[in-house]
Amino acid sequence: MRLSELSEESGVSTATIKYYLREGLLPPGHRVHATRASYDASHLRRLRLVRALIQVGKIPVATAREILAAVDDDSLGLTMRLGAALWALPRPPAGPAEEDEAAREAAAEVDRMLTEVGWERVRELGSLSPVHRSLVASVATLRRLGHVCDATELVPYARQMAEVAAHDLDLMERYPREVEQVESAVAAAVLYEPVLLDLHRLAQEEESQRRYGLAAREGGGTEAEPAP
Amino acid sequence: MRLSELSEESGVSTATIKYYLREGLLPPGHRVHATRASYDASHLRRLRLVRALIQVGKIPVATAREILAAVDDDSLGLTMRLGAALWALPRPPAGPAEEDEAAREAAAEVDRMLTEVGWERVRELGSLSPVHRSLVASVATLRRLGHVCDATELVPYARQMAEVAAHDLDLMERYPREVEQVESAVAAAVLYEPVLLDLHRLAQEEESQRRYGLAAREGGGTEAEPAP
Repeated sequence: MRLSELSEESGVSTATIKYYLREGLLPPGHRVHATRASYDASHLRRLRLVRALIQVGKIPVATAREILAAVDDDSLGLTMRLGAALWALPRPPAGPAEEDEAAREAAAEVDRMLTEVGWERVRELGSLSPVHRSLVASVATLRRLGHVCDATELVPYARQMAEVAAHDLDLMERYPREVEQVESAVAAAVLYEPVLLDLHRLAQEEESQRRYGLAAREGGGTEAEPAP
Repeated sequence: MRLSELSEESGVSTATIKYYLREGLLPPGHRVHATRASYDASHLRRLRLVRALIQVGKIPVATAREILAAVDDDSLGLTMRLGAALWALPRPPAGPAEEDEAAREAAAEVDRMLTEVGWERVRELGSLSPVHRSLVASVATLRRLGHVCDATELVPYARQMAEVAAHDLDLMERYPREVEQVESAVAAAVLYEPVLLDLHRLAQEEESQRRYGLAAREGGGTEAEPAP
């Protein structure tokens, strides 16, 4: 298809598409003659991913380029290709990366949790993974604020997330080619994580209505003084 | 304890504590005489929550005040008290709230998902809940970008999150008083959600190493041309 058709099909303006082409976020079309290039389904797919990264994920262009380079690097095995693409995604800062007692304890608790749930592979990789580092930093922040956050607390959540992750990869494997699989994993990380958090909060609302009802307390304001 | 002891115990400077007191984020101490007030365990607990909201959650002071008002409102039933506190938390924008075809379809799919998983209570509340609105907006964004995101996709994730939420409330119920329960739920929403997302990513890393190994592909770069 022509650039104008790619624009129509994707809902992205031709000016924006040209900008993505210039920035190397979208591979050039197949040259038909000197002034015309042709685009195919792979361009449409990539355009969708670029919009997810830039418009929804608010990811800087340079970072998006880095992520897409990993998506396209088919010299890597699938695990490393996924890892490189997902590791390049910006993460919210988990608080200062201090080397204090809380950080050391957090690293030990995360390690203990990984052993308990049997995640030997990421345990071996350890702090080489930015996700591992981010988790340790989050746990350290919790502990610095005086919250209980140890292996025992983490294990049930890790087990739940293992089931979610297995389902993620099942969905990913519906795509026939690896490049599409990695594209879908990156889009999922950017677009589905907010959905996951919303589902989590909505589940809390449902569960709390089930347990505690919705009615206002009768004779409110008496709780501040516990019975002696 | 005195202000200086509260500072020592919490690791928060006296200047910051005084600022929180002035802003109404921390209730005043019990006046001992004209120039001295005394603080107790409830101040220490509240101070921890305020730091979680302001320092870690980067939540504006006015919003934090609104959240804490809901935490303290014991005229509400526990469900509404939790809801009011959690609903006041800022949510990342899920994209423009357009009233287009995608938004209508998204609302219908979320409704269908809620029916399938049996979340009748939040289904009835519907778009009164900002979490419900946020979920519909996220699903609409996915659909606008051409991704499949319907009730069938959402149901397995919703079921997982129901188990996580039940576990959340079990943990919350370990606290004896409602005000502590609501405080812990707010702290968990701010501090534990990053942990949950990190565990999710780490689970993906483990699962993808299990399925695909870690090795580089032999004779890489051959994938672009699928067999005819």
